[in-house]
Amino acid sequence: MKKYAFGVDIGGTTIKIGFFATEGELIDTWEIPTRTADNGKYIIGDIKQSIEDELAKRNLSIDDIEGIGLGVPGPVTEDGTVLKCVNLGWGVINIEEILSDAMGKIKVRAGNDANVAALGEMWKGGGKGHKDLVLITLGTGVGGGIIINGKILAGANGAAGEIGHIPVSDDETEPCGCGKKGCLEQYASANGIVRVAKRYLAANPDCKTTLRDSDNISSKVIFDKAKEGDSVALTIVDEVGRLLGKSIASICCVLNPEAVVIGGGMSKAGELLINTIKEYYKKYAFHASANTEFCIAELGNLAGIYGGAKMIID
Amino acid sequence: MKKYAFGVDIGGTTIKIGFFATEGELIDTWEIPTRTADNGKYIIGDIKQSIEDELAKRNLSIDDIEGIGLGVPGPVTEDGTVLKCVNLGWGVINIEEILSDAMGKIKVRAGNDANVAALGEMWKGGGKGHKDLVLITLGTGVGGGIIINGKILAGANGAAGEIGHIPVSDDETEPCGCGKKGCLEQYASANGIVRVAKRYLAANPDCKTTLRDSDNISSKVIFDKAKEGDSVALTIVDEVGRLLGKSIASICCVLNPEAVVIGGGMSKAGELLINTIKEYYKKYAFHASANTEFCIAELGNLAGIYGGAKMIID
Repeated sequence: MKKYAFGVDIGGTTIKIGFFATEGELIDTWEIPTRTADNGKYIIGDIKQSIEDELAKRNLSIDDIEGIGLGVPGPVTEDGTVLKCVNLGWGVINIEEILSDAMGKIKVRAGNDANVAALGEMWKGGGKGHKDLVLITLGTGVGGGIIINGKILAGANGAAGEIGHIPVSDDETEPCGCGKKGCLEQYASANGIVRVAKRYLAANPDCKTTLRDSDNISSKVIFDKAKEGDSVALTIVDEVGRLLGKSIASICCVLNPEAVVIGGGMSKAGELLINTIKEYYKKYAFHASANTEFCIAELGNLAGIYGGAKMIID
Repeated sequence: MKKYAFGVDIGGTTIKIGFFATEGELIDTWEIPTRTADNGKYIIGDIKQSIEDELAKRNLSIDDIEGIGLGVPGPVTEDGTVLKCVNLGWGVINIEEILSDAMGKIKVRAGNDANVAALGEMWKGGGKGHKDLVLITLGTGVGGGIIINGKILAGANGAAGEIGHIPVSDDETEPCGCGKKGCLEQYASANGIVRVAKRYLAANPDCKTTLRDSDNISSKVIFDKAKEGDSVALTIVDEVGRLLGKSIASICCVLNPEAVVIGGGMSKAGELLINTIKEYYKKYAFHASANTEFCIAELGNLAGIYGGAKMIID
């Protein structure tokens, strides 16, 4: 094994790059802008340039590098084919082959960003010590990544771990971003919980709650008010925690993982949310999965570069 | 690779044994009774004896055998540990080690029977040509087995694929066999659909249906009446198909498999049930998984011995 590796997390606005020792240490990390112009045709060249600049700065050559692991914000199959990546403007391309060819046939591995983040959390984050886990990110949307026996589960169309689109309600009237109605993401994301709260306030105009004092109800406001004991905010957190606990019980009926790692902005709500999720998980879980460990993600937005590096180091 | 292998499917009343050429052909199959007396202590010896008898009959020795693959009706972890097997009377034992030691250190592999059956269906049955699939068996209960990259997914406690216990209803008043309320199995098994029908008839005493002509409503009666156009029977099949289609959509959000294979006694209902499941699957599925292939299991109660042999041949 060569001494160094790169982990790259391609986002819609910035590309995070991490320079790692293959022994596991993150040596340096930086960002470059994601140039999505002209169907994202500059992105690969920009990554190549940034990596070469870093190597030059350190008096290293590409021969010192074991490989480059990439997280991509779209579906990626096991052989490194990006099936489509709307955020970047990419159509169907084999990103592993293209970047490898551009960089002297170096080893390149790619995965969906949520899946790669899950690998990062397994390696150095909240899932450390486990080899079978599910990462659930509660951010603007609800994302997921699945690790089985230390490896990313990509799925036939690169769509494994799309747990934000588990159907949880037959009564929903508004569409999810995916076009369906009643997806988990419509309730359990940062946007979703706000929607649940506003809907509750509209349906219960006479209920007393400090939530009405806020000009702009955000997920943070809801959790803060719930922690202060506001009964309506607590009701909302309870309902969202119930949907998450129930969905995680379904996931665990399928996978029976060692651990579930909760990440994303909403995981910062801490004990209140996790305890609510766990309470409902216990209610809905099959007995053989009842003791699945719940952990909080630890790497924040560095999970992707860690996971990228881990794809190479393994 | 040696020339022969055995696949063994241990059930609560009989043990099925298959003698295979490692090239893939099933040469012979037979059954012996499962002696569950004295906490199932005779079972392993009975299997050993039956295999040795077969070898003697064929003038073969244990040295001609690549190995023995076992399906066990309980949770089995990846290292071959049976965690508990109520039907057989077994506690926690490593069945791979015990049988291997008893038979001159031959290669032994074991898995949960539903998971092993899934492997069999992938190899020689309805899932042929796929390497990522989910088998759903609609029998007395609802069982499941998951194959990822051609291998059984065991799960941390040997409980992966327990999809009969996905929570699908919050309104259920009767308990499932597992102790929870509202599991998929309570509606979508042979017993479950009868329960749904009886409940419907009790709640709608004035509805006209030929179902009331039956002294003994079974799942077969319900499907037969539905095929004859009985609107109540069709309503029941529709509701059960909806719960299955929705649950499979959830499963596919997690795994994004290539194929879903439907087996068990109820799969004999054929097109009517499958088409209803597929119709609701399309409604509930995430777009990237919308084209998951649906197949009917083909090996019946031989799936377990095929899967057992495949564990060895791989």
